[in-house]
Amino acid sequence: MTHAPIAMRSAVAADLESMIAMLAEDTLGSQREDTRTPLDQAYIDAFDAIAHDPNQLLAVAARGDRVMGMMQLTFIPGLSRRGAWRGQIESVRVAGAERGAGIGKQMFEWAISECRTRGCGLVQLTTDASRTSAHAFYERLGFRASHLGYKLAIGD
Amino acid sequence: MTHAPIAMRSAVAADLESMIAMLAEDTLGSQREDTRTPLDQAYIDAFDAIAHDPNQLLAVAARGDRVMGMMQLTFIPGLSRRGAWRGQIESVRVAGAERGAGIGKQMFEWAISECRTRGCGLVQLTTDASRTSAHAFYERLGFRASHLGYKLAIGD
Repeated sequence: MTHAPIAMRSAVAADLESMIAMLAEDTLGSQREDTRTPLDQAYIDAFDAIAHDPNQLLAVAARGDRVMGMMQLTFIPGLSRRGAWRGQIESVRVAGAERGAGIGKQMFEWAISECRTRGCGLVQLTTDASRTSAHAFYERLGFRASHLGYKLAIGD
Repeated sequence: MTHAPIAMRSAVAADLESMIAMLAEDTLGSQREDTRTPLDQAYIDAFDAIAHDPNQLLAVAARGDRVMGMMQLTFIPGLSRRGAWRGQIESVRVAGAERGAGIGKQMFEWAISECRTRGCGLVQLTTDASRTSAHAFYERLGFRASHLGYKLAIGD
């Protein structure tokens, strides 16, 4: 059995169901997402908002037409650190059946390279304190857990 | 002695020296920033990039023409949590002489209100793990330190 290579590309609307399925797949996401189709309009609106913001890059890892991973990069201009741009990584997921095959590492190498191309001086992400295997993964990539990540829900 | 009220407003180019001075004022920032004037062009470019991005809001707390605090809000569209927008707060500073007078609390109440107005479901920030007094401040505002914040410097 031969495999096409895994490639990173910008997400398109046709990837939306695969992406929501990946977000819903893990313990934390299963309580938060709604995978019923047709998808909730809120997901479609969010996809459009991301697609129209030049400082957002929603990407998928795909082999042929099979989506195996996703991540969102946000490029943030800022004054601190002598006006450094930051590349922020959110919503990183690898489909359950595809884990342990190095896709996550490939996705992050691509993401860091994109951040360099965009002139970022720093790459940042937060991860739930309970995701201990993710922590080890980020540390192997050279990230340091120098910060605490605070959240406040303000939804209705 | 009477005081004009402290008001939050969008930062303008004339605030730039005051903002860089605040960023340089603390232990971490003093090693990172360059307060020499005329300011390094990188700061001016960063200010322009922020001002031209409709999903960025750089704000100052001012009493009359005196700038006493600063913060940057980034509004981030995302798929997760049913397409929730996030409001992210960075570069929060209160000028040294003005601390302990409740300005920080006023700034955060304003920021959370702005995030609600923009339809965000979540407000997030990261803070250096060494800033223990900031942690207590965020917890009093209702934030939970549910995440770890990882950073990777990729500058030259």
